Amino acid sequence: MSHKTLQSNFDVDYVISYRMPKDEDKEAGVTQFRKLIRALAETGLTTEVRRGDETSLLVFVKAADEKILADVVHRSRIKDWLHGVRQVQPSKDVANILTSEPLTEAERHRHIHHMICCPREEGGAGITPKHGEWKNVEAVFPLHDHVKNKKWLSEFTRKTFLTPDDLDEIRNTVGEKIAYYYAFLQSYFSFMIFPAAFGFSCWVLLGNYSPIYAIVNGLWCVVFVEYWKRQEKELAIRWNVKNVSTIEDKRREFAPEKVTTDPVTGEQVWFFPAKKRLQRQLLQIPLAALCVVGLGAIICTCYAIEIFISEVYDGPLKSILVFLPTILLTLAVPTMSNFLTGFAEKLTFYENYETQDAHDKAMISKVFVINFITSYTAIFLTSFVYVPFATILVPYLDILGMTVKPFAENEKQLQTPSPATFTINPNRLRNQMIYFAVTAQVVNFAMETIMPVVTQRGTKKFKEMQSQRAEKHGGTTPSVADNDPPEEKDFLARVREEAALPEYDVTSDLREMCIQFGYLSCFSVIWPLTPVSYFINNWVELRGDTFKLAVECRRPNPARADSIGPWLSSLEFLAWLGSITSAALVYMFSGGDGHGPDGRPHQIKLWALLLSVFLSEHIFLVVRVLVRTAISKLDSAAMRKERSERFMVRRKYLEDAGLGHAVKPIASPPNSPLKTESGEQAFASLTRESLEDEARNQSTSTSGAGEGSVERFWLRQRSWAESERAGLGMIELMDLGTKEAKKAQ
Amino acid sequence: MSHKTLQSNFDVDYVISYRMPKDEDKEAGVTQFRKLIRALAETGLTTEVRRGDETSLLVFVKAADEKILADVVHRSRIKDWLHGVRQVQPSKDVANILTSEPLTEAERHRHIHHMICCPREEGGAGITPKHGEWKNVEAVFPLHDHVKNKKWLSEFTRKTFLTPDDLDEIRNTVGEKIAYYYAFLQSYFSFMIFPAAFGFSCWVLLGNYSPIYAIVNGLWCVVFVEYWKRQEKELAIRWNVKNVSTIEDKRREFAPEKVTTDPVTGEQVWFFPAKKRLQRQLLQIPLAALCVVGLGAIICTCYAIEIFISEVYDGPLKSILVFLPTILLTLAVPTMSNFLTGFAEKLTFYENYETQDAHDKAMISKVFVINFITSYTAIFLTSFVYVPFATILVPYLDILGMTVKPFAENEKQLQTPSPATFTINPNRLRNQMIYFAVTAQVVNFAMETIMPVVTQRGTKKFKEMQSQRAEKHGGTTPSVADNDPPEEKDFLARVREEAALPEYDVTSDLREMCIQFGYLSCFSVIWPLTPVSYFINNWVELRGDTFKLAVECRRPNPARADSIGPWLSSLEFLAWLGSITSAALVYMFSGGDGHGPDGRPHQIKLWALLLSVFLSEHIFLVVRVLVRTAISKLDSAAMRKERSERFMVRRKYLEDAGLGHAVKPIASPPNSPLKTESGEQAFASLTRESLEDEARNQSTSTSGAGEGSVERFWLRQRSWAESERAGLGMIELMDLGTKEAKKAQ
Repeated sequence: MSHKTLQSNFDVDYVISYRMPKDEDKEAGVTQFRKLIRALAETGLTTEVRRGDETSLLVFVKAADEKILADVVHRSRIKDWLHGVRQVQPSKDVANILTSEPLTEAERHRHIHHMICCPREEGGAGITPKHGEWKNVEAVFPLHDHVKNKKWLSEFTRKTFLTPDDLDEIRNTVGEKIAYYYAFLQSYFSFMIFPAAFGFSCWVLLGNYSPIYAIVNGLWCVVFVEYWKRQEKELAIRWNVKNVSTIEDKRREFAPEKVTTDPVTGEQVWFFPAKKRLQRQLLQIPLAALCVVGLGAIICTCYAIEIFISEVYDGPLKSILVFLPTILLTLAVPTMSNFLTGFAEKLTFYENYETQDAHDKAMISKVFVINFITSYTAIFLTSFVYVPFATILVPYLDILGMTVKPFAENEKQLQTPSPATFTINPNRLRNQMIYFAVTAQVVNFAMETIMPVVTQRGTKKFKEMQSQRAEKHGGTTPSVADNDPPEEKDFLARVREEAALPEYDVTSDLREMCIQFGYLSCFSVIWPLTPVSYFINNWVELRGDTFKLAVECRRPNPARADSIGPWLSSLEFLAWLGSITSAALVYMFSGGDGHGPDGRPHQIKLWALLLSVFLSEHIFLVVRVLVRTAISKLDSAAMRKERSERFMVRRKYLEDAGLGHAVKPIASPPNSPLKTESGEQAFASLTRESLEDEARNQSTSTSGAGEGSVERFWLRQRSWAESERAGLGMIELMDLGTKEAKKAQ
Repeated sequence: MSHKTLQSNFDVDYVISYRMPKDEDKEAGVTQFRKLIRALAETGLTTEVRRGDETSLLVFVKAADEKILADVVHRSRIKDWLHGVRQVQPSKDVANILTSEPLTEAERHRHIHHMICCPREEGGAGITPKHGEWKNVEAVFPLHDHVKNKKWLSEFTRKTFLTPDDLDEIRNTVGEKIAYYYAFLQSYFSFMIFPAAFGFSCWVLLGNYSPIYAIVNGLWCVVFVEYWKRQEKELAIRWNVKNVSTIEDKRREFAPEKVTTDPVTGEQVWFFPAKKRLQRQLLQIPLAALCVVGLGAIICTCYAIEIFISEVYDGPLKSILVFLPTILLTLAVPTMSNFLTGFAEKLTFYENYETQDAHDKAMISKVFVINFITSYTAIFLTSFVYVPFATILVPYLDILGMTVKPFAENEKQLQTPSPATFTINPNRLRNQMIYFAVTAQVVNFAMETIMPVVTQRGTKKFKEMQSQRAEKHGGTTPSVADNDPPEEKDFLARVREEAALPEYDVTSDLREMCIQFGYLSCFSVIWPLTPVSYFINNWVELRGDTFKLAVECRRPNPARADSIGPWLSSLEFLAWLGSITSAALVYMFSGGDGHGPDGRPHQIKLWALLLSVFLSEHIFLVVRVLVRTAISKLDSAAMRKERSERFMVRRKYLEDAGLGHAVKPIASPPNSPLKTESGEQAFASLTRESLEDEARNQSTSTSGAGEGSVERFWLRQRSWAESERAGLGMIELMDLGTKEAKKAQ
């Protein structure tokens, strides 16, 4: 730790924010608070208590002494070694463990967090924030390193690309899980240069719906996903987190059906039958159906209303009514999707996973389905329903006409145009893609990064004003900061602010990138400038996320990871889907005016459409296999290094066992005079006759006895030299093509 | 080893057959023979030399003493442990290693074989049969256990299913690689009960081309492949070969581009750039093209000739000419495919793989492509070219008519029928499938199992007759057996026979099963009795293979494996392909007479065909994901056992490090009186005032100093008890909903 952070954070490792319950539960709250302090002390953590806000306490925590921490670190390293995360067995010199292999900040935080949160049986304090008996523990978090945060914010905005060192620093500060997100975003951003440049050229030279763009874009998607999979592995080696996902932490909420005793280990095993879980997982099918129906219905309805109002309806209040579908959409979709997410959460909980990893994975796959539907349904409708079939379908929107009857001034306005006169808006699809590529990204950035600052500042201002007003009116509410020791005043004020911040959720950031990748792979052929826009957006995104991480959220608890997790399969799926949609879009809309089939579906030959989709998909799959094979064959410095290390470890063991694989001829049997140069001299004294006599004697003395015959078999030639000679004798007897050898005898 | 085998095989572990070169190279042959005997002796192997056939020697080998073998075994076990094959670190008591964990026969053979064949740097004799300086070493093989072989042959023919114990015995005798083949065949056979029964019902009730059969069959294929993948893993646990594929033996033939020194390990590294290999692998594309063109051309030509002669041509010599295409096919296809296999071998060699595994994998994938084309092209042509398009295409066969002109008697016979009068043979497809399902299997069995016996017996008889005739004519050629000691006569005769047998190649048996699986998954919808036929065939196949293994081939060198290898991906691919072809066949031929579209292609709607293929394929892929997930979630006894063992090992390490995860509270810091029940009494003497005084004193004495403030921060509450009390005091100051608490103060 640097001197500066020591000064600013008072050596505090972690802060626990304890919220006192309302008056009626005060007794219970006090008891639980006592338990908290004791549990922390028993785990070997020193505590200092200060006031938080009006009804909360801040418990500052640090390791009581470095020896206890060293012990925890040592245990964790042994565990890592047993799971194959470490190559080298940790030294048994526990006392010097922290100096011989110093901890990064993130590692230190991780260990302290582990001490606070892991179950008592495993030597931790067993605090589970917001859960069970510890529901009053509002948050357990480390303190921001404001110096470093500032440095990041100013440095990153001056750079186009983050260097590997920057990523390392992120990893050292907030842990591998978030560092993986940064590394992904960084790779994605760098990779985007190519489609951005190519997309721009296509836009200038080839226009929209270019088959060339579609092919290059599909290829790019495959290469990127496969490259990232490789990159993940290399980062895992670089950050020493390979196989970390095999260390599975038990979920606290896991409810076993029964507790059995393992017959081999004698350990208690919490058992939940896989079959039962599988049955529960089957509920995912109705959930998915509900998502499709629920969200689909809302989006389709709003879509139909929108088309009707903007393109068919020509009555009064059109300028106002045109906003109706957007309003409906922005109200209904988040409501529905929150409801579904809640439902998905409950289902995932009900599925009762044993490990946190499995739980998260199951949850993420559900979230992906929901997001997939909310994100892509609208553009899918435009591409594959509105544009080809609008002239057929729009007349049926007539039913909707009924609802606006009251607003109509004369009969004429209400009449929907006949299919012959109605023309679809040929730019609708492109405009929609531009919306998703530009507008939605800007709005999203504003909602995600700028809004929270504004809200936070606003709330702060409001609170200040309120207390000022209260002071004016004479009611001098004593501030919680009044009792702070003067030298801690600034520090405590900062901690109170940090405690009030929300948690940083890296999953939502990853989700956002995945959805973006989906637009790129599936629909960017509509408007080839899409990658250009995303390229710019992602530069901003990374800086915005850094701002969020450093300023708008509490410092996250560092977590290890060796991958971006289930999102990787989402990326693979979206790239695959892209090969289908791109081919369909290109077939339907390319050629001529680039406006597509203009609502005359008979112009689309279904067989040609299906054939192009079929071919495109299978070419995609073959190319993917090729790219995957090619990338897997390439070697890298990190992998070579890892192999060398593993080799060293193995060699050490083999050498320790006296079996090093260096040249070490096995001792020759004592009775064979191997060291003599030719071996011939060694048995010069033994004449052939004497040997044969001996053999004959043996054979007569024990002939016929079963056991003896084995011994005799092996004693005919008593050493390697005798074998050799016997063999040479036999060779002499052979007929090797010419009769010369025989005659010589 | 049992008493019986000791008696019958004279304790011989291995036999090396050394072929003397022709007379002109005799000197070199003698020198190399001497080298052989010395190399074996240096490795710690005892040798006995006997005559083989006319120009070969048999070198009998056994471990010189059990200590040397124990050393080899220990080294191998350490290696296994380092690669994660073993959970438990092998004990350091090398002397008792063979009694504490006895070797199976296959393991003993594997170790001895390793001693004979592994490079000198690794402590072996470095014999490489048929390669390099050891090209005179014709074979290195263990001896058959005839008692066990007989037992197998008689037992297996009496059983319907092999038990797991039978598989274990196979594994213990001939090693895991062959045992995996037996296990696969066994699983496949047992699984086939269902499609056989279902197929029979379909044949009775629904007829050919039933969509229901196609769906069930596709589902069965997915379930079988996924089940086998799981089964493989369980067998790997049962046979302690998990991760064995990570132990990569260097290929002797690997030619590095340069030899560098690893900067980390100081080890010499043989380096061959992956990029260069990738470039060489690109040659696989022309190879594949050559396969398609070469084999495709032959098969298509023969196919066209056959159709012309059997269905169009009506001239003279028809009864003879009808065999022409078959003769052409049986002559040309094996020639071409041997040529291509040779080419593939050369290419694989040129690709220069570092490990034997990678080499085999690359070779197998090429062999699969060649076999795929030779096996499926004909039936593919009938399904998708002949039946739908024959009436259009057959007139073009007219060109062929020219070639038979000389045989024609009158003009009429030569005229090809007009498209209107030509009718395709509606049973052709079914008959072809019946051929592949029944006839081809019988022929194959005869070629593979019965032919070699006949040939061997014939050759033996011929030789006997020859020598008898020679004797009659007075030329008394001395037999090599004349000098055999009488008690060894039978044994040596047996060994000479075994030495003359070919090697057993498990790959070709696996290939055969894969190709059969392909017919089942892709084309069995044509004739639902196919699985019934295969079910019967596979029962015979397993017994035939046992016969081949036990009688017709040398005993194989046991090899370890943890999978059936690359064939697994072939199975996956064929199951996938099946989802496409089955859908197409069902769409084209189901309904009505079950004879298909009868050469009227306009009846096939291309869009409907493509749509059914598209849907079928994607349903297949979704179902595969579901089945895979479901199977991966199921637990088994073997896996539980493995987890328990791993857990035990880990616990042992943690306990050894004094960090067992049993309840063991970390020592509390010495200055905190934790042991007192409530903690309250402990600091009863410290009044609140005195504490605060102290704090105030400290803060005045060092106020403002940076360093001191940290210490002061942590000393405000000197123990957990003080923290607790300070916290309780703060809680008293809180406004928790009601004003009661405040007023009480």
